[in-house]
Amino acid sequence: MPDYVVGHKIPDSDSICSAIALSYLQTTLGKETVPARLGELSPETNFILDKFGFEAPMLKTSYAGESLYIVDHSDRVQGPDDIDDATILGIIDHHKLGDITTSTPLECWIRPVGCTNTIIKMMYDFHGVEIPKNIAGAMMCAILSDTVIFKSPTCTTADIKCVEALAEIAGIEDFKAVGMEMFKVKSAVEGTPVRDLVLRDFKDFDMNGNLVGIGQLEVTDLSVFDEMKADLEADIAALKAEGKRHSVILLLTDIMKEGSELLVVSDDDTLIERAYGKTTVEGKVWIDGFLSRKKQVVPPLQQAFV
Amino acid sequence: MPDYVVGHKIPDSDSICSAIALSYLQTTLGKETVPARLGELSPETNFILDKFGFEAPMLKTSYAGESLYIVDHSDRVQGPDDIDDATILGIIDHHKLGDITTSTPLECWIRPVGCTNTIIKMMYDFHGVEIPKNIAGAMMCAILSDTVIFKSPTCTTADIKCVEALAEIAGIEDFKAVGMEMFKVKSAVEGTPVRDLVLRDFKDFDMNGNLVGIGQLEVTDLSVFDEMKADLEADIAALKAEGKRHSVILLLTDIMKEGSELLVVSDDDTLIERAYGKTTVEGKVWIDGFLSRKKQVVPPLQQAFV
Repeated sequence: MPDYVVGHKIPDSDSICSAIALSYLQTTLGKETVPARLGELSPETNFILDKFGFEAPMLKTSYAGESLYIVDHSDRVQGPDDIDDATILGIIDHHKLGDITTSTPLECWIRPVGCTNTIIKMMYDFHGVEIPKNIAGAMMCAILSDTVIFKSPTCTTADIKCVEALAEIAGIEDFKAVGMEMFKVKSAVEGTPVRDLVLRDFKDFDMNGNLVGIGQLEVTDLSVFDEMKADLEADIAALKAEGKRHSVILLLTDIMKEGSELLVVSDDDTLIERAYGKTTVEGKVWIDGFLSRKKQVVPPLQQAFV
Repeated sequence: MPDYVVGHKIPDSDSICSAIALSYLQTTLGKETVPARLGELSPETNFILDKFGFEAPMLKTSYAGESLYIVDHSDRVQGPDDIDDATILGIIDHHKLGDITTSTPLECWIRPVGCTNTIIKMMYDFHGVEIPKNIAGAMMCAILSDTVIFKSPTCTTADIKCVEALAEIAGIEDFKAVGMEMFKVKSAVEGTPVRDLVLRDFKDFDMNGNLVGIGQLEVTDLSVFDEMKADLEADIAALKAEGKRHSVILLLTDIMKEGSELLVVSDDDTLIERAYGKTTVEGKVWIDGFLSRKKQVVPPLQQAFV
């Protein structure tokens, strides 16, 4: 029976590409391992898989009785629902340490870098395994996506060096051009149902007992949202009303202007003010320089719940 | 202001030696870091520090407002009491993943190997930093201690290779002889107050909401306990009565016969039977092959609480 590698719910390109890259590594090392996913792929991820000739990893949401590696998260709420009944062999991640625990020793490669795939490159180097050309291309795109082509404050020297090395392996000369092509695919939001946009890159966080959902849409020009902003606002309000969330936040991120507009629906009107020192006007506020949910949006918000 | 490296409460040789080894590495890499400890040193650890010319790390139990690396544990109950008010920069550990969480990204090197110092050797290699002779000697002893000179089921090929490499750096020809010398120091229990023995290598675990304390005394011949066993039994009963623990277990481990006698005081008389399929007689049971608290004692016990 093979082991699995799976990223978080509502998978992004890092979750999918790191599952593919890690399962190839483990299989090469003699542990047969299959990449899997917890949800539908985004247009950006489809672009990457098409470009480098990969099928989508299998959709598999239940892991009871199985063994798996977890990539790109360590929070229970983001992982498989029945993770307590599975054996976690390892966690590869670049976020804050979440609340997943295990009953047996495991392997954790967690680093404060911009992307899980940067850490997986370290694992290939540690084990002396050669990265196939197409896997290198997918890993490179995932890092360009997570670091917003090196613009994000989460980007480290290790990420940049890693992209350069992977581009060489993949035989790609102008990796920034590939990154821009990818972000243009990501920016094509017209014609997509509003709920699909809200949930395209959406993560739930447990903040001191409060469930907070934070979505993010990264585009090359915020004006693509001009005609649908009212619909997005209405939909995050609807999403909050449907569930048990204390707050729902949608980040509309302009990767060229390097900032984000936050659309906010919350049980606590002072939350955004307390977290970021900025006041929402009609549930909206632009914050200059905000590109990273992980590094800029989540930590102050979590502090505001203490 | 320097950062700190600290191991678990009631520090063992791995917690102390890995704090010394990691703080030297971080300081060499440009991050001034000081080794610290949460409690008194054991005779075994004093033997190691004396042998290689180290002072005891500073006793420091409060870390509010400071930044630190955690070594040899990832369970809240084993770490500093005010860890929530500190910034955790990283965790280096070889146990199951515990319930420590962070609000910012960090560095975790967690591997299913026999000793934290084996992982710290990997970190030195990763960063290309040379290990000083005396630090190599201390790291080597910690691995020999944790793996019971390679006899423990927790011992991996990585631990053995690491001890060989560290012995060479330290200029030690017969590392097994050093290991036996160290375990003889550890076996000298006569004249020590009973409570000191019970708490010498004692860890608390949160098992599904129940506090379980497990101590371990590793000796080269179990007969050293013949005259004090009744006192040890009375003392773990007293220890349980003093606190909120569901169970207190003391492992009397014979490293030559390769097994342990368990002394047990518990709110649940069926616990040991359910966990290990062995019945205690008057609160005692010998289990052949039991050397490792981490790998053999804790996981089945944790399962028995589900």
